[in-house]
Amino acid sequence: MTEVLELAKRLMAAESVTPATGSVFDRLEAMLDPLGFSVHRFTRGDGEPGSPEAPVENLFAIRRGPEGSKHFAFAGHLDVVPPGGGWHSEAFEPEVRGELLYGRGAVDMKGAIACMVDAVTHVPADAGTISFIITGDEEGPALHGTRALIDYMGEHGHQPDLCLVGEPTSVNRLGDMMKIGRRGSVNIWLEVEGTQGHVAYPHLADNPIPKLVAMLAELDALVLDEGNDWFQASNLEITDLEVGNMAHNVIPAKAEARISIRFNDEHSGASLSELVGSIAEKHGGVAKPIISGEPFLTPPGEFSDVIARAVKAETGIDPEPSTTGGTSDARFLRAVCPVIEFGLVNATMHKSNEAVAIEDLSTLSRIYTAIAKDALG
Amino acid sequence: MTEVLELAKRLMAAESVTPATGSVFDRLEAMLDPLGFSVHRFTRGDGEPGSPEAPVENLFAIRRGPEGSKHFAFAGHLDVVPPGGGWHSEAFEPEVRGELLYGRGAVDMKGAIACMVDAVTHVPADAGTISFIITGDEEGPALHGTRALIDYMGEHGHQPDLCLVGEPTSVNRLGDMMKIGRRGSVNIWLEVEGTQGHVAYPHLADNPIPKLVAMLAELDALVLDEGNDWFQASNLEITDLEVGNMAHNVIPAKAEARISIRFNDEHSGASLSELVGSIAEKHGGVAKPIISGEPFLTPPGEFSDVIARAVKAETGIDPEPSTTGGTSDARFLRAVCPVIEFGLVNATMHKSNEAVAIEDLSTLSRIYTAIAKDALG
Repeated sequence: MTEVLELAKRLMAAESVTPATGSVFDRLEAMLDPLGFSVHRFTRGDGEPGSPEAPVENLFAIRRGPEGSKHFAFAGHLDVVPPGGGWHSEAFEPEVRGELLYGRGAVDMKGAIACMVDAVTHVPADAGTISFIITGDEEGPALHGTRALIDYMGEHGHQPDLCLVGEPTSVNRLGDMMKIGRRGSVNIWLEVEGTQGHVAYPHLADNPIPKLVAMLAELDALVLDEGNDWFQASNLEITDLEVGNMAHNVIPAKAEARISIRFNDEHSGASLSELVGSIAEKHGGVAKPIISGEPFLTPPGEFSDVIARAVKAETGIDPEPSTTGGTSDARFLRAVCPVIEFGLVNATMHKSNEAVAIEDLSTLSRIYTAIAKDALG
Repeated sequence: MTEVLELAKRLMAAESVTPATGSVFDRLEAMLDPLGFSVHRFTRGDGEPGSPEAPVENLFAIRRGPEGSKHFAFAGHLDVVPPGGGWHSEAFEPEVRGELLYGRGAVDMKGAIACMVDAVTHVPADAGTISFIITGDEEGPALHGTRALIDYMGEHGHQPDLCLVGEPTSVNRLGDMMKIGRRGSVNIWLEVEGTQGHVAYPHLADNPIPKLVAMLAELDALVLDEGNDWFQASNLEITDLEVGNMAHNVIPAKAEARISIRFNDEHSGASLSELVGSIAEKHGGVAKPIISGEPFLTPPGEFSDVIARAVKAETGIDPEPSTTGGTSDARFLRAVCPVIEFGLVNATMHKSNEAVAIEDLSTLSRIYTAIAKDALG
């Protein structure tokens, strides 16, 4: 326990608000190097700090097993969300109070990365190939993070057979939930143009708002699906309306809205963009989609069984395989190999006084060891 | 012709962007005083310039006829809209170029007030009582303008039998249209409150936008009436939408819209406010109306015949009795006596290079003389 706690504190003590570079990666490299890992780090993005193109650091580390052995990957991120206010201790000065370790990144997800590092010390080097796929841009735009790591892995022939993402998936107790998939996400900007005019002379104007209202009513009434065995029903939310007309007696020239769809594996970002686009067009408008991520599913089977066995052995709990919640970098890694997410309790993630139970760190470390051994074996 | 042109130029040379006070009223008083009018001026409002309570000047002038004679009133305003850009001469330096007199207020409506003044010089003092009801706040909020004049007239027992408002009602040629009524106007602010939340967890939120959309769809589908003999159909326009939610993954807490209804005499501001309020409530929202004016109608008859005869005699045209267009101070004066609007060609009103045909000034002056004589006789 002492070892994994120290590793977690060392990572948490390096300020790394997204996008992360530098010190926190130096510390992880210093941990992996003595364990026999070849560490490759690279930075992408050349924009100003604060811009979507701000520099992002990525780390890929690999310890090769015997020729022909399996390749198991741990994936995660070292960047964290900003601390915000309301902390009882310094966000980047990890502090043990009672049974808990406090500090930004405790559960999301420097704590889990510490568990991964500690876990591999208990996996014999000849068990197989193990890699770390670690980005500094998961909480931000995710443009130059895991996607760039996947490109790098492809170029160098580092193809894992299975990948575990250490996101904090547990809800009430460590081990109660793993994510075997995630819904996809698309935001679509809707716009209707009309002709401005005076309210007293509507025949000389063309009000775009009733067209937008009819379009939104039709979109809101859509039933995309009923859900399926592994996914809840896809959901469309209207998230914004905008006209910005201050003049009471003026019919405006343009009306805009934005919708957000979280969708399961019965759709793709493209199929939904096309559906919404055709409804927008029918009402005289246009739709501009930005797809944040496609859905993924690693159907329950061999890999989820590996995880469930390890969790059950260490905690006595049968983890629920779930696809709920937001998106994660698993949406990119799905293109490489089967991927499942499992990690710490997420109750305090993104909040002030983020904290992890110290006991959970050592339990998760043992679970990760068992998963790696089982996956490679 | 020379006399009315000079009167118009004198009024137009006094800058009087709404709300108007001072110089332009001094000039009108100096014109009416020698004609035997008792002039009373008063200022209302004590707010900062630019605020809705900024000071407003009003003028009531009366020339009493013999005991028991009729009382005919000219009504109008000396304030003007701001000049804006694009003028070929100075907006407040009236300039004759060719057949036209250019300057802000040429048609709306200092030109018409000059015609009224010129007209009364040709009406014998013993023909009856004539008054001028002139405000400096018609183009603005109209809080302390004609309404205050009506209060003053009521307090002093000055009750006209007929009132002519000199708004520029002619469309293509002087004399082609008079306004025997105006639609009413009400703006209604609509608001739906919900519960903010994350798009990925819609069951924990309550999105107000679909409720607002359903409310607006129902309002947009309303057929308020089919119009009647003297009014076009009432019309509802949605004029604004507002949520202002920048976060793509957030369900917002509040959604707002604004509608504007121009309505005929089959409704009142109160009846429409109640109707919209009940529809808003049905969809979980609230409606906050501000009634700008009730509709009025002076049905075709004796008074419109007086005007039509005078117009026909001077121009050969039969003026169309209309109720189209925006609102005017006739919406207040209707409470005092039958009121009709008739004035210059409105093609350039509120625009740059506002201009009146010099010939029209003398023609309108003769028409106003004939109307006053006929109305009193």
